[in-house]
Amino acid sequence: MHRFRQHLEEIISLTDEEFEQIQSFFVYKKYKKHQVILEEGDLAKNEYLVLSGLLKSSFTDADGKEHILQFAWENWWITDYNAFWKRENSILSIECLEDVEVLSLSLEDKTRLHAEFRKMEQFFLKKSNAGYVGLQKRVLSLLTNSAEKRFEQLIATYPQLLQRVPKKLIAAYLGVSRETLSRLSGK
Amino acid sequence: MHRFRQHLEEIISLTDEEFEQIQSFFVYKKYKKHQVILEEGDLAKNEYLVLSGLLKSSFTDADGKEHILQFAWENWWITDYNAFWKRENSILSIECLEDVEVLSLSLEDKTRLHAEFRKMEQFFLKKSNAGYVGLQKRVLSLLTNSAEKRFEQLIATYPQLLQRVPKKLIAAYLGVSRETLSRLSGK
Repeated sequence: MHRFRQHLEEIISLTDEEFEQIQSFFVYKKYKKHQVILEEGDLAKNEYLVLSGLLKSSFTDADGKEHILQFAWENWWITDYNAFWKRENSILSIECLEDVEVLSLSLEDKTRLHAEFRKMEQFFLKKSNAGYVGLQKRVLSLLTNSAEKRFEQLIATYPQLLQRVPKKLIAAYLGVSRETLSRLSGK
Repeated sequence: MHRFRQHLEEIISLTDEEFEQIQSFFVYKKYKKHQVILEEGDLAKNEYLVLSGLLKSSFTDADGKEHILQFAWENWWITDYNAFWKRENSILSIECLEDVEVLSLSLEDKTRLHAEFRKMEQFFLKKSNAGYVGLQKRVLSLLTNSAEKRFEQLIATYPQLLQRVPKKLIAAYLGVSRETLSRLSGK
């Protein structure tokens, strides 16, 4: 749990006792590569903090084409947030691209956690603000940049992505064809 | 200030005294149509809650083409959030598309407001979470949908947009050409 405490203490300071109590709200889970931890159409009961490994959340359109909303690895949070907050059925599915360890937090436990630990509310406020800014950048990038520029930006920001994620999935994240991406990445 | 209190009380409950104190953190400002309230390159010192009127935030690329990140009208919050949080120079500019009344909140005052009123932290957490979900939907729409579908979705969600915003700007928000939009909207 050392990594989890480090992750929290990037934003808030905790006593040992506070950390123990906060930790007790989370459930540790392990999944294998290719396991689907949230199916489209199911309730998104939990959000997940990734301790190790890599996941993707994606939307499959009416033609069966996959579009990737998010990759999540160490210290990223992931779920279908729209479904999570509204207790609705998920339109996304979340799949493990590697063996994965996560901490899982249900909406009920998150609500109690917020009520009991103002620090955790502050933690999630900072995370949410940062996530909002990240998505604004992504929208601007989709509006503004060519496929080539989007690819370059992505790899500059996350150099490990090319090693960890198949090209086909990077293309589905960038909104470009597999062929375009192959041309751009020189393979 | 009645509208402001209503806006806050959609999420939190306030006593008269609390509302008076909270209100004192904000500065009421009026701007005329076409006024630019944040210039690209300036520090984004404030965020703005729109009381009346309509604004846009946009990014102008190296070729001089404008891309619209956000429209904001009554009860929407707007600034260059990346610049605001990081105290960096703005890459966006924000312009009034109508005469506008806003409540302005500086980062310093927001920080004090959070510290003194946990309720306001909770308010902004809910707003931020909702904004995050809204942007996830926009990313998915940009990845998934045709120009035609994006236009239909936008007008279904915000029917007043066509009345209040010139077509050229709607095209710059959707990431389509003015010609495509004219074809889609039948004019």
